[in-house]
Amino acid sequence: MRTETDPLGLQREALRRRARGETIGFVPTMGYLHEGHTSLMTIARERCDWLVASIYVNPLQFGAGEDLDRYPRDLKGDAHKCEKAGVDLIFVPDTLYADDHSTTIAVDKLTTGLCGASRPGHFNGVTTVVARLFGLIQPHVAVFGEKDYQQLAVIRRMVRDLAMPIEVVGGPLVRDDDGMALSSRNAYLSPEARLRGRSLSQAMFTMQRLAQEGETSAKLILDAGQQVLQVDRLDYLQVVDAHTLAPIAVLDRPARAVVAAWMGATRLIDNVDLA
Amino acid sequence: MRTETDPLGLQREALRRRARGETIGFVPTMGYLHEGHTSLMTIARERCDWLVASIYVNPLQFGAGEDLDRYPRDLKGDAHKCEKAGVDLIFVPDTLYADDHSTTIAVDKLTTGLCGASRPGHFNGVTTVVARLFGLIQPHVAVFGEKDYQQLAVIRRMVRDLAMPIEVVGGPLVRDDDGMALSSRNAYLSPEARLRGRSLSQAMFTMQRLAQEGETSAKLILDAGQQVLQVDRLDYLQVVDAHTLAPIAVLDRPARAVVAAWMGATRLIDNVDLA
Repeated sequence: MRTETDPLGLQREALRRRARGETIGFVPTMGYLHEGHTSLMTIARERCDWLVASIYVNPLQFGAGEDLDRYPRDLKGDAHKCEKAGVDLIFVPDTLYADDHSTTIAVDKLTTGLCGASRPGHFNGVTTVVARLFGLIQPHVAVFGEKDYQQLAVIRRMVRDLAMPIEVVGGPLVRDDDGMALSSRNAYLSPEARLRGRSLSQAMFTMQRLAQEGETSAKLILDAGQQVLQVDRLDYLQVVDAHTLAPIAVLDRPARAVVAAWMGATRLIDNVDLA
Repeated sequence: MRTETDPLGLQREALRRRARGETIGFVPTMGYLHEGHTSLMTIARERCDWLVASIYVNPLQFGAGEDLDRYPRDLKGDAHKCEKAGVDLIFVPDTLYADDHSTTIAVDKLTTGLCGASRPGHFNGVTTVVARLFGLIQPHVAVFGEKDYQQLAVIRRMVRDLAMPIEVVGGPLVRDDDGMALSSRNAYLSPEARLRGRSLSQAMFTMQRLAQEGETSAKLILDAGQQVLQVDRLDYLQVVDAHTLAPIAVLDRPARAVVAAWMGATRLIDNVDLA
């Protein structure tokens, strides 16, 4: 496995490989990797000849007062995990943007609610960095985790709208033994916060079970989930259309339960299918 | 020469040709073609194996009250001109966007002044349609006219920022025998308005001559240009940095004179190099 830090050097190699007929796979990450990330690499590995993973804590997607400066990092550990997962090249740029970078990609509609409501500008930062990484890496297939369910929907929309010839694959959320969704931000949690943080996944499972038992009232499902939560501050708990992410009252179409909540200074998210 | 109306059919062909090693050239237009457009096709023709020209009046780049509905059209004449200029395929979509299109590309800094100031949202419409056309056509090289000087700068910036592997080439402005910059919108002008419309190019030539004679004061150059203009309403007349498009006071770097003005309901633009 090689490491590349130069954006344009990476692009030259990607274009050479494409011209030779190789298929390129890509998994973007912000590092501090866990099995949630490596599972995406495993999915991508089977679909490409050359697999690139990026490790870049993208400042554009952090708001003022968010955890950009304390975001956890472990490049050596990350490199080891990427190699084990079959990555051919890790892209670890020092910086990704020109000093006079001027371009922003915004996806509306899908970004007004949920995490978009409490993290203004976040998704613009995500779509902008992903488009730039796509330009540099020229992937045929890119894999994103369903853990960031709204992000996945936003990226699918951008790729469709800008006619990027890229297959976007969603990888299933990976959970710890206690049910908690794997997240680099779990590293921030005290043991006590971790215990109560499990209530996010427990709320998701409760809501999923009700839906599976045939309940179609979003209100009743939400009430049941709400009762399970033991968080410091709820950001949102919603039942949404699985495609448009708009809140729904009746489960008459593919739906998703989504939650975001604070444990102290740490913001956690989770989601489940309500098929 | 073939005509294609289906966006995804076009993309499939473009990807097939790329995979075979062909070089793709692209000239986007809004139709009602003149020698300004065909000169861009001639430039592109020499740089590619397969040349695509698009003809699409993009609603995203027209503001409320602008001339979207009356923008001149002549598809039959356009097709004939494209064929003569060596175009292999004209792309004439009925519509280019999904009903729930949600994505916008914005380039800041370069778009705050000049045409961006009087046409809010215009450049977002331009960058968004160009990015989508790039996605569909997968060009190696794309040619844009220097007539729309700010547009060319904005597209160069987008391509750089999003790391699109596309060479953007600027084609020189083409003038009529009377000096007037060719524009599809010249068709709107009455004979009397056309006569006074020539004063835009005369102002540009006056300013260029002064700069060539060694004048370095932007104010003196602007005053001389201003005296030549005989327009109904001036939008802007400026001397700007050729790269950043910021107004400059002294010609101590590559500079451009730029003008936009109204003749009745018709908005005209022009520009010259002040090297």
